[in-house]
Amino acid sequence: MVDVVVIGSLALDDVSTPFGTVKGALGGSATYASIACSLFSSPGVVGVVGSDFPQKYIDQMKSKGVDLRGLEIEKGGKTFRWSGEYGLDLNSAKTLKTELNVFEKFDPKIPSDYAGVDFLFLGNIDPSLQLDVLSKMKKRPKLVVADTMNLWIEKKREEVLEVVEQVDVALMNDAEARELFRTSSIVKAAREILKRDSEVAIIKKGEHGCVLFTDSSYFACPGYPLENVKDPTGAGDSFGGSLIGYLAKTQDFSFGNMKKGIVYASSVASFNAEGFSVQRLCEINMRDVTKRYGEFSEFVKF
Amino acid sequence: MVDVVVIGSLALDDVSTPFGTVKGALGGSATYASIACSLFSSPGVVGVVGSDFPQKYIDQMKSKGVDLRGLEIEKGGKTFRWSGEYGLDLNSAKTLKTELNVFEKFDPKIPSDYAGVDFLFLGNIDPSLQLDVLSKMKKRPKLVVADTMNLWIEKKREEVLEVVEQVDVALMNDAEARELFRTSSIVKAAREILKRDSEVAIIKKGEHGCVLFTDSSYFACPGYPLENVKDPTGAGDSFGGSLIGYLAKTQDFSFGNMKKGIVYASSVASFNAEGFSVQRLCEINMRDVTKRYGEFSEFVKF
Repeated sequence: MVDVVVIGSLALDDVSTPFGTVKGALGGSATYASIACSLFSSPGVVGVVGSDFPQKYIDQMKSKGVDLRGLEIEKGGKTFRWSGEYGLDLNSAKTLKTELNVFEKFDPKIPSDYAGVDFLFLGNIDPSLQLDVLSKMKKRPKLVVADTMNLWIEKKREEVLEVVEQVDVALMNDAEARELFRTSSIVKAAREILKRDSEVAIIKKGEHGCVLFTDSSYFACPGYPLENVKDPTGAGDSFGGSLIGYLAKTQDFSFGNMKKGIVYASSVASFNAEGFSVQRLCEINMRDVTKRYGEFSEFVKF
Repeated sequence: MVDVVVIGSLALDDVSTPFGTVKGALGGSATYASIACSLFSSPGVVGVVGSDFPQKYIDQMKSKGVDLRGLEIEKGGKTFRWSGEYGLDLNSAKTLKTELNVFEKFDPKIPSDYAGVDFLFLGNIDPSLQLDVLSKMKKRPKLVVADTMNLWIEKKREEVLEVVEQVDVALMNDAEARELFRTSSIVKAAREILKRDSEVAIIKKGEHGCVLFTDSSYFACPGYPLENVKDPTGAGDSFGGSLIGYLAKTQDFSFGNMKKGIVYASSVASFNAEGFSVQRLCEINMRDVTKRYGEFSEFVKF
């Protein structure tokens, strides 16, 4: 039974990093988020691909326990494509090309059992689609987590702000938070998120970890000291998917448990960056994730 | 009695940030480092200024307990000048101008009681000068800490590597570590530092905090969540000065105490960024620093 619904992109990615290049690799925010989520819960995906989307990718996602009854395959359509490259500083991708293709006119249809779930992850995609899916739920889920990216902040700032307003947990990275709220201080940006009815604000900082703000509390989680980063693509999506998966599993939204969720999510995201595409994400199990969780608690002791 | 010798620049800075502009402000790596160090120990400065260096700046440093018997005032000479600006992302300065002036032909003279101290801080300055001062010490100090910056890595890479080889604690920020060791991984960069006989490698990451590596251990200290950053200039120097000041005071170089030193240093550096020039650094006392140290320990608990 699906307990977390994930919407977002499923993509064919061309990615180049100092450590290699992949073409037509399995990517997309919903892909990374749902596979990561499957470590903790049972995700179902709402999204669309074209008939060029390889069956083996569908099989790969299914083999990780991802429910794909909400995935539309548009006959003759072309799958969303993203192409990006990373320089020596792997923290920020340079987007070379974004082709929305089948997502341009996507009208999400939510399987009826999906529409009643308690946990909804609005992965990085057009904020109008995020709001549309939220409005199509039979009841307000217990917890809605949303992610976004600079493209949408630049093209649809008002809609992104509306998403932040509507959801419980607004995720974004530090550069995006600065851009969305036009401030140099991520503390101020976090306060803006909290003002908009978000319970918590989480600012992701790539290899520098992430920070969690509530009205009265603050938590900083460091990045995992990875010696061999291969491709950070999808690390943020894996983070988001793991976090909502963990919260769906534990059903505890306290600050203390939220912190634990963030450390689990950071652990999964760090594995993600060790390989291209979803390779490492598909290899790891909860034992790996829990071991790394333990390391995190050692790294910050003083 | 001076127990820490600090060499580095004393400068007149023109700095522009989104929050204001200062001209001819007191700056320089030795200035920030020595004032920060004075919170914990008794620093003496080796450096040079021109006759244009305002007496009030000398008085200000002396009032913080900084010993200036090692400061040469070159008659008719012009003080080192740095001019830089910061954009919305305050993490990296754009250097507009660097005028070495009196530092171009500086031949450091070390007061005889300075030459026997146990703690030497080689602040960010030409690595040839750092090596020269180290060679002029009567005996090898117990602990030598060195800082550097991209300018020297680009102009004098071999000398910077020699400094890393000679000292006990090599400080640099993440971009500098990547540049010096030509790797995208700060973990790999840290291993390169450790290979060069450094006991520990500390990578500073601005608002993201810093990380400490030894051959077998790792520690991550988050950044302090500052709501009002005014000017990050000198935060790294303040960090270095505080760290060596704390280690001189405690005389304990264990990993556990090094971690404590790093959190104290992060606390001081965060205050530094709250004002232009050395304003906040001159206002704070140990009670402020200790209070913030306590907050750090709360921020990382999970």
